[in-house]
Amino acid sequence: MDELDIETVADPDLRDPVLVEGLPGVGHVGKLAVEHLLEEKESELVRRVYSEHFPPQVTVSDDGTTELACAEIHAVELDDRDLLILTGDNQASDNAGHYRLTDAFLDVAESFGVETVYALGGVPTGELMDEYAVVGAATDTEFVEELVDVGVEFREDEPAGGIVGTSGLLLGLGERRGLRATCLMGETSGYLVDPKSARAVLEVLEDVLGFEVEYDSLEERADDMEDVANKIQEMENQQSGMPTDENLRYIG
Amino acid sequence: MDELDIETVADPDLRDPVLVEGLPGVGHVGKLAVEHLLEEKESELVRRVYSEHFPPQVTVSDDGTTELACAEIHAVELDDRDLLILTGDNQASDNAGHYRLTDAFLDVAESFGVETVYALGGVPTGELMDEYAVVGAATDTEFVEELVDVGVEFREDEPAGGIVGTSGLLLGLGERRGLRATCLMGETSGYLVDPKSARAVLEVLEDVLGFEVEYDSLEERADDMEDVANKIQEMENQQSGMPTDENLRYIG
Amino acid sequence: MDELDIETVADPDLRDPVLVEGLPGVGHVGKLAVEHLLEEKESELVRRVYSEHFPPQVTVSDDGTTELACAEIHAVELDDRDLLILTGDNQASDNAGHYRLTDAFLDVAESFGVETVYALGGVPTGELMDEYAVVGAATDTEFVEELVDVGVEFREDEPAGGIVGTSGLLLGLGERRGLRATCLMGETSGYLVDPKSARAVLEVLEDVLGFEVEYDSLEERADDMEDVANKIQEMENQQSGMPTDENLRYIG
Amino acid sequence: MDELDIETVADPDLRDPVLVEGLPGVGHVGKLAVEHLLEEKESELVRRVYSEHFPPQVTVSDDGTTELACAEIHAVELDDRDLLILTGDNQASDNAGHYRLTDAFLDVAESFGVETVYALGGVPTGELMDEYAVVGAATDTEFVEELVDVGVEFREDEPAGGIVGTSGLLLGLGERRGLRATCLMGETSGYLVDPKSARAVLEVLEDVLGFEVEYDSLEERADDMEDVANKIQEMENQQSGMPTDENLRYIG
Repeated sequence: MDELDIETVADPDLRDPVLVEGLPGVGHVGKLAVEHLLEEKESELVRRVYSEHFPPQVTVSDDGTTELACAEIHAVELDDRDLLILTGDNQASDNAGHYRLTDAFLDVAESFGVETVYALGGVPTGELMDEYAVVGAATDTEFVEELVDVGVEFREDEPAGGIVGTSGLLLGLGERRGLRATCLMGETSGYLVDPKSARAVLEVLEDVLGFEVEYDSLEERADDMEDVANKIQEMENQQSGMPTDENLRYIG
Repeated sequence: MDELDIETVADPDLRDPVLVEGLPGVGHVGKLAVEHLLEEKESELVRRVYSEHFPPQVTVSDDGTTELACAEIHAVELDDRDLLILTGDNQASDNAGHYRLTDAFLDVAESFGVETVYALGGVPTGELMDEYAVVGAATDTEFVEELVDVGVEFREDEPAGGIVGTSGLLLGLGERRGLRATCLMGETSGYLVDPKSARAVLEVLEDVLGFEVEYDSLEERADDMEDVANKIQEMENQQSGMPTDENLRYIG
Repeated sequence: MDELDIETVADPDLRDPVLVEGLPGVGHVGKLAVEHLLEEKESELVRRVYSEHFPPQVTVSDDGTTELACAEIHAVELDDRDLLILTGDNQASDNAGHYRLTDAFLDVAESFGVETVYALGGVPTGELMDEYAVVGAATDTEFVEELVDVGVEFREDEPAGGIVGTSGLLLGLGERRGLRATCLMGETSGYLVDPKSARAVLEVLEDVLGFEVEYDSLEERADDMEDVANKIQEMENQQSGMPTDENLRYIG
Repeated sequence: MDELDIETVADPDLRDPVLVEGLPGVGHVGKLAVEHLLEEKESELVRRVYSEHFPPQVTVSDDGTTELACAEIHAVELDDRDLLILTGDNQASDNAGHYRLTDAFLDVAESFGVETVYALGGVPTGELMDEYAVVGAATDTEFVEELVDVGVEFREDEPAGGIVGTSGLLLGLGERRGLRATCLMGETSGYLVDPKSARAVLEVLEDVLGFEVEYDSLEERADDMEDVANKIQEMENQQSGMPTDENLRYIG
């Protein structure tokens, strides 16, 4: 295998497509968001990107068959314009790999006519939350203004430390190619996989791109996660000898 | 030396050979299994693969002479079909090295006409065991069915995290070349070198490939390991003040 | 993007320029020093150096726009001779990257006619200080003597462990190209960003290169840091139950 | 600078030279041994090897001038045959770097006609010692026998884990080029720089190569180290409340 190996699975014509990225990261917000889009909308796998910059690893499916670590790019046809969705199980394993893989992703996107990139992710707040703001960063001030209009927050010094990995480079390398790019980051505790944060990010995307999506299955997933979070809370309380809601019923 | 340097030691004609890999890994199951095959069957060293992706290291033999870190490929002629056995003391030291070495191993295998690959390894259970199931993963569903027929277990979400290193890539890169490949993983505690797990894996291989092998020397090694495990257990018990089998005799 | 990508932003003619480097390091002394020069003097950005040896990262500005990790080279025109100032937010992420980036910086410098290099940095003393000596090292004994004349101290075995990173290689690789180079290191505790140490280094540079600079804004920054240092001191004293200056007033 | 840059400083004709390597390692035994040879015998620097596989670093001399990290090869003319001595302050920083630098060292050695290589080092025993055996390993059994004749010990399973770094690869890569190579390892505690172990290794080299060297300066260095070791011992004893030899005199 070469350092990078892009497998062409399909080559549909897309109408004015934008690239939407959701790779693993804080709270798995970006990955959850694009996975939900792929579940809810009809999609077609168009490219697989293999690379020796991914971990030396296969995943095992439920039927016992294996798949080599790769990133996948899917086409989703919407009413007004189409999406190219980039997802996968891995970020690059090394510094140069981040640059080379992101360049490969942008090459594919540009070959489909992409001019705008949405990198989706999470921004850690360190505490459990009820309201999920979406924090943004973008390659130019016009794009910033457009996003402010749909409720995205731009905050000084946030995210502290900048944006790292593929999401960051989609903006950094995208801008150098003359693309417009933004990173939309849902607030999330940072401790758990966070479907509610993923919904907040997707709702921004609906507004910006003019499409609609159902959230039932994502809400179920959010409820499951809430159960997990509550159980953890309970166990911690029991260890510290404090009564939980559960305990209180028996006292009463 | 080049990045990869394949030394041709012999070039026998092999009948319908399969590649069997056993490099260091969980419980050294794969390595023990192929070492046992090489002890029990007549074999011929056919290739040494040197690489700057291996550690910068020589091993010292009992006669004081040294050998540069390498992987070895041996040919074993059986009644029905032949084996190419890949073993060695090291995995690659870096991410890209895993990909490049596995590609080199597959190049050698294909040059001998190999169409099927068996990667042998262990899957950690975290507890000492009496029965040793063999868990599998394979490149296609037909191969999965063949292996189910000889008792290999295919389990959802196992191994969690997929299969990493050379074993994983033999499947991932093998499939991309059009080879059939499986990883056969003997259950093992993960704490100790495990000859019994190696035997379980070899017994599957006997069934699939139609050959037979003696296990006396592997059983001796298993008994040695059991003595070690018992001593560790005893020491732990003495430290915690609990009587061991040994102690009980003296009490009686 | 290539491994190294040097963007030409401007190409002014410079009179007898010297290269002055201030990248992140001990006490951020070098970076503070060159940032202060860029604030106080008129300057022009002449080059941006992008590289996959920098972290895969964008920083986010106060207006919400992003910038890809890079090093910047600015031209500053002084009365007698001009400066090329190298700064940025990152050192290289890997060993070879340090060599390749430093070579790129020296290529740019030589294209402007630079023959002398001043690497600015800090040397950690492990204790808070009142007086800030500047310790030096240089590529040749003549240069050492020149610097001794303006008060730079050259001490046996200091800095212990030599000079690492871009500063070190500007001397090591610079000398191999026939350039004169020195590293001027302000003494600093090593615990805090240290504007006073940066001033000490700049004052040496003023003497050597014959220019003058105001220090008001750097002194403000030093006062801010002193407040921070005092608060840390106070908190530590309160924890250990010892009275601080603040407490003593209330006792009286 | 290229990945590897070999600077030719001198090109003397040497009579039947052998390569003697002493880079930093366990107890600095190898480096001490070759440094002592260079102090006691007339020598000429013949090559400097620079590489981006060395740390990005300059060392600072007592006169304040700097030197880029490199390895040095010196020629020493003895009565019967000459030596090429490889020394320096660093091993390679990365896996591939060890292979590439060792190949470069062997290229230089072969260009001078070297057919035999002596890698000098230490083998850690974990305890302070009175007698310093020299343990060996070599590329062929004849060489092993020659070294047994001069008192080198060859022990099963020692050094456990083989020989790593440049010393190991001089044997591993040397053998692949058809060179004879040995690693002579002085026993050493592994805790301290060990001039006595270095002497033990040099005495073997004297026997094998037929030359003589004075040990006064090395003995002084050993005495200094012994003082250091005694002080550490004393401090430990005082902390544990046990009397030292020193204390006992005062008690009496």
